[in-house]
Amino acid sequence: MQVYADNAATTKMSKKSFETTVSYMENEYGNPSSLYTIGQKAQEALVSARESIAGNLGCEPREITFTSGGSEADNQAIVSAAEIGIKKGKKHIISTEFEHHAVLHTLDKLKKRGFEITLLPVHSDGLVRVGELSKAIRPDTVLVTIMFANNEIGTLQPIAEIGKLCKEKGVIFHTDAVQAVGHVKVNVKELNIDMLSMSAHKFHGPKGAGLLYARKGILLSSIIEGGAQERGKRAGTENVPAIVGMAAAFTESCENMDANYQYVKGLRDILIDELSKIPHSKINGSVEKRLPGNVNICFEGIEGESLLLLLDDKGVSASSGSACTSGSLDPSHVLLALGLPHEIAHGSLRLSLSEYNTEEEVKHIIKVVPEVVEYLRSMSPVWKDLKEGRKEYVI
Amino acid sequence: MQVYADNAATTKMSKKSFETTVSYMENEYGNPSSLYTIGQKAQEALVSARESIAGNLGCEPREITFTSGGSEADNQAIVSAAEIGIKKGKKHIISTEFEHHAVLHTLDKLKKRGFEITLLPVHSDGLVRVGELSKAIRPDTVLVTIMFANNEIGTLQPIAEIGKLCKEKGVIFHTDAVQAVGHVKVNVKELNIDMLSMSAHKFHGPKGAGLLYARKGILLSSIIEGGAQERGKRAGTENVPAIVGMAAAFTESCENMDANYQYVKGLRDILIDELSKIPHSKINGSVEKRLPGNVNICFEGIEGESLLLLLDDKGVSASSGSACTSGSLDPSHVLLALGLPHEIAHGSLRLSLSEYNTEEEVKHIIKVVPEVVEYLRSMSPVWKDLKEGRKEYVI
Repeated sequence: MQVYADNAATTKMSKKSFETTVSYMENEYGNPSSLYTIGQKAQEALVSARESIAGNLGCEPREITFTSGGSEADNQAIVSAAEIGIKKGKKHIISTEFEHHAVLHTLDKLKKRGFEITLLPVHSDGLVRVGELSKAIRPDTVLVTIMFANNEIGTLQPIAEIGKLCKEKGVIFHTDAVQAVGHVKVNVKELNIDMLSMSAHKFHGPKGAGLLYARKGILLSSIIEGGAQERGKRAGTENVPAIVGMAAAFTESCENMDANYQYVKGLRDILIDELSKIPHSKINGSVEKRLPGNVNICFEGIEGESLLLLLDDKGVSASSGSACTSGSLDPSHVLLALGLPHEIAHGSLRLSLSEYNTEEEVKHIIKVVPEVVEYLRSMSPVWKDLKEGRKEYVI
Repeated sequence: MQVYADNAATTKMSKKSFETTVSYMENEYGNPSSLYTIGQKAQEALVSARESIAGNLGCEPREITFTSGGSEADNQAIVSAAEIGIKKGKKHIISTEFEHHAVLHTLDKLKKRGFEITLLPVHSDGLVRVGELSKAIRPDTVLVTIMFANNEIGTLQPIAEIGKLCKEKGVIFHTDAVQAVGHVKVNVKELNIDMLSMSAHKFHGPKGAGLLYARKGILLSSIIEGGAQERGKRAGTENVPAIVGMAAAFTESCENMDANYQYVKGLRDILIDELSKIPHSKINGSVEKRLPGNVNICFEGIEGESLLLLLDDKGVSASSGSACTSGSLDPSHVLLALGLPHEIAHGSLRLSLSEYNTEEEVKHIIKVVPEVVEYLRSMSPVWKDLKEGRKEYVI
């Protein structure tokens, strides 16, 4: 049995999104900036895609700038807010310790330009505290950027309260919603979100398409200069097939959200219940305030990479954390931010489900994960020390 | 009859590129940063794509950074060279008056950071002079960025001589080769090119994929920060389907280049011969040093936009210049750089052919363009003035 359980890394395209994308790739290849008919058809497709996405996000079409993906949108959001800050003499930005690197590394770059960055702590439940944010906001704070749902542990931040607070304090609020959009309800106006990043391939859309929502009145700076596409805010021939595919996938995700949520959460809860029975394991982050499909669990005495390779051998595709940082030997900065010690953070497993997963697949995971954990522990010198009392269990 | 004659704006995907892209979209959706099998398959596809493209460009695979397209690659090349310049205390950059806006606007941004920009003049043949470049290079020149082939008039710059000169003078040489690659032979090592931008959808590949070649030893700066993809030089989940589709299209274009060149140039020469017979018309730029598929012609006394709309009505998709600047009422900065007066630059027509065009299509163009020009002139007050001697013909 092959089980794809890494939907936080990327997803299989939905049939509808796939067919829409392919049809535009094949037939409507015109450049939307062109005056002639096939160019205008591509232009109309862009307009429709923008309208449909705006409807589902609760914003206006002109508040959407299409990008090549979530990382680009995060970069553009933060750079734009920084430029606004420079004009206003405000050079303080607040974020969190466990943001995606697209946010953290962009903030690092701003530090070199004289910005001061406050990273809020993340508590052991994987959540930030609005009270701590409130205290951190200063008169020179231009931007608060806090992710909607964490990409490793899936915890859902108190976005409505953060949005309300930022609005009251007159601070721009950006959220990296790459993991959330399409999976939980996100209405930018209701939540007082000023800027939001999303990426199509995280909700069964194509790779190569994302967007930045920016509330009317927030001046975006280009990070890709050139042609006048996207009202001069993002140069380059629009990737129309991917954009229409993103709109199709988003519509589908929003239409089926409640049913998908219940179904995926049901599967996830079985996983959490069963995998928690493995001795000396620990679910990372709040189970309640969490994406429906996310399981993140640590097993003491083993090493995450070996776990993944053995699981792959048994047909389960999973990860130890973010795909973007794989290859690095450092443990996840997210799990460290939660206060986990290095050795525990190294033994983490992320399983991220989608509505395409089945109960049989979940049963397969429940069967193989304990076997693999036991096997690895049987060969682990650390586990031997723990079992024989030469070391103390942490979890 | 429907004739697509705007291949400089974008191209129809080749069957092979389309099938490759679609197959990866459908089956190999894994994230290449993941450890498990379907992730590793995507990773292997990326490796193969990089190797095959490198082979065709004459560089090493690790000298290639995949981007979302040509504009992004241009931006990254110039920003990277500027960072190198800052470190070396060299803040002078040389380019030309008729570059793509992805280059010109990025240079404008650098001006605000204290860079001095010299734009070389373009002569009436649509070519820059190497002697003038040589004189413009100063001890503090860090970068020369000159396009391989112009996107509006298709003129091929003396890239080999420019590369040789830059190498001798120790100046980084970047070329925006978006229009050239896949159509004429480009070997970066032979031509002494240090950095090169290309875009898949200009040679029958998919939209949403491009790359920046940078010679080993040239440190790239990221313009999209985040994950460790592309050796930390370009964050964001790799658009694997589009990248493999780009590699497929590039291989095909390079394999068939000689035959395509002769075929397309044959069609183009018929067009140039026949359309030149229209009175008071003028081919813009050198006919000899030119992309095989490019025709750019001005007609006195008419307005380009009307010409395009009427041609569209007769089944011909063409443009007046770059798609990226359509919507602007200003005449083409390229044609103005050639010394054409505003009113002539306004009456320009770009026809750009590919190997998918047929002789019948060319015959159709030859039939309808003179009809449309005549019709528009019959209604043009400017033409009336010219004909009745109240104004003098410019061409």
